[in-house]
Amino acid sequence: MASYLITGCSRGLGLALTSHLLSFPPSEVRVIIATSRTESSPLKDLTEKSGGRVKFIQLETTNETSIKNAVTESEKILGEKGLDVLINNAGIQRFAPDGIASMNDLEDHFNTNVLSVHHVTRAFIPLLQKGSLKKIVNVTTTLGSIAMANIFAQTPCPAYKISKTMLNMLTVQYSLEYASQGFTIFAISPGWLRTDLGGDAADLSVEEGAKATTEKIMSVGKEQNGEFLNIYVKGFGHYDGTNPPW
Amino acid sequence: MASYLITGCSRGLGLALTSHLLSFPPSEVRVIIATSRTESSPLKDLTEKSGGRVKFIQLETTNETSIKNAVTESEKILGEKGLDVLINNAGIQRFAPDGIASMNDLEDHFNTNVLSVHHVTRAFIPLLQKGSLKKIVNVTTTLGSIAMANIFAQTPCPAYKISKTMLNMLTVQYSLEYASQGFTIFAISPGWLRTDLGGDAADLSVEEGAKATTEKIMSVGKEQNGEFLNIYVKGFGHYDGTNPPW
Repeated sequence: MASYLITGCSRGLGLALTSHLLSFPPSEVRVIIATSRTESSPLKDLTEKSGGRVKFIQLETTNETSIKNAVTESEKILGEKGLDVLINNAGIQRFAPDGIASMNDLEDHFNTNVLSVHHVTRAFIPLLQKGSLKKIVNVTTTLGSIAMANIFAQTPCPAYKISKTMLNMLTVQYSLEYASQGFTIFAISPGWLRTDLGGDAADLSVEEGAKATTEKIMSVGKEQNGEFLNIYVKGFGHYDGTNPPW
Repeated sequence: MASYLITGCSRGLGLALTSHLLSFPPSEVRVIIATSRTESSPLKDLTEKSGGRVKFIQLETTNETSIKNAVTESEKILGEKGLDVLINNAGIQRFAPDGIASMNDLEDHFNTNVLSVHHVTRAFIPLLQKGSLKKIVNVTTTLGSIAMANIFAQTPCPAYKISKTMLNMLTVQYSLEYASQGFTIFAISPGWLRTDLGGDAADLSVEEGAKATTEKIMSVGKEQNGEFLNIYVKGFGHYDGTNPPW
């Protein structure tokens, strides 16, 4: 009977999470509020075929007025039951092939991958307080692990990495503050997926990533509040389901 | 014979580092370029009494034009020997006593504590490439350690903590890229000091912090490139000189 709200659903992981969650019976997943700047054609199709269980709301996460409007629209859909699970999925990843000194997009990554998550999260907390699960899921990446940085030294997206490290600390700060209210707030690395963001060489299809991410989101309990989670995918040593180091 | 450039020298740790470095003989510390937005009265006094070894340059780290001008002025002072040690010390710390949902200064902390360090660092790299030590020191804090976040849960400065975590990852990204050129780039926590930023209840005087920080900066070699360093102060268990966890 849980309700979900996901950001960045026009394509990629957000769209795949919406689709995968819809495959659960209404007794497990009541409603999925799929948000994005614009309703893409695949998201529109999914919404129309969902029997009313996928609801689209326009949400530009970098715009505080848009966030406020999305909260109002969500309240109308969710009513007194509130929101159970917020998935902060919207994000950008750009490259600096000429090295870190040429990095001119740190501010863009900060705005979209961190500041927007803060604004969306605090705006939806009142709805989550009414919900029963009180889960906040921040989509991160192992590329944001400081301890693993040497492993990914050759991946030329420093602003993306640095912003995701910051997102991890934002997640932990929220988790510490809302633990006493029964919240479960965590960061999860959904794996390297074949999306527009991940590219064709990635490890997993977006459907595999969405399935593994959903399994983790559903299985996590309060004892994992504040953790940095990794997906489990059989046959992939680096998707062994154990937490990456910070 | 080393040359130093420090940001944020009008007061606090920056001023104390300038003063402490000046106590070394010219054979060890040739020149200290003390920078800040405005030349404070104590900094002016120090500069005048330094026998020409402390040079003031106006530098507003959040302003790229000001950074560019400071590089030009520094080149005139340093000549062909370049710069040996850059200390990114300028920073802000503000509080959110009503909790993380009331945090409205994440962007300010990002701009001053992270983005400015990126801009200053990349602007001074050409001068550091000419220098012999090639050290870049980013002043951070154990409050930016994600692994230690629960210890500091009651310190109500989430934006400061989150920005310093991001600074740590920025430091590591620079360290990985410039290791092959002989750079030593690290983050150091100078301790909790009795400054305007640290307050009166802090552990150490600013002079003790500046002394311990300088000892660490001078002793660090290339094998500590990319590390998160802590000061050593006898009698303080949490200033034991061992690296904090990320």
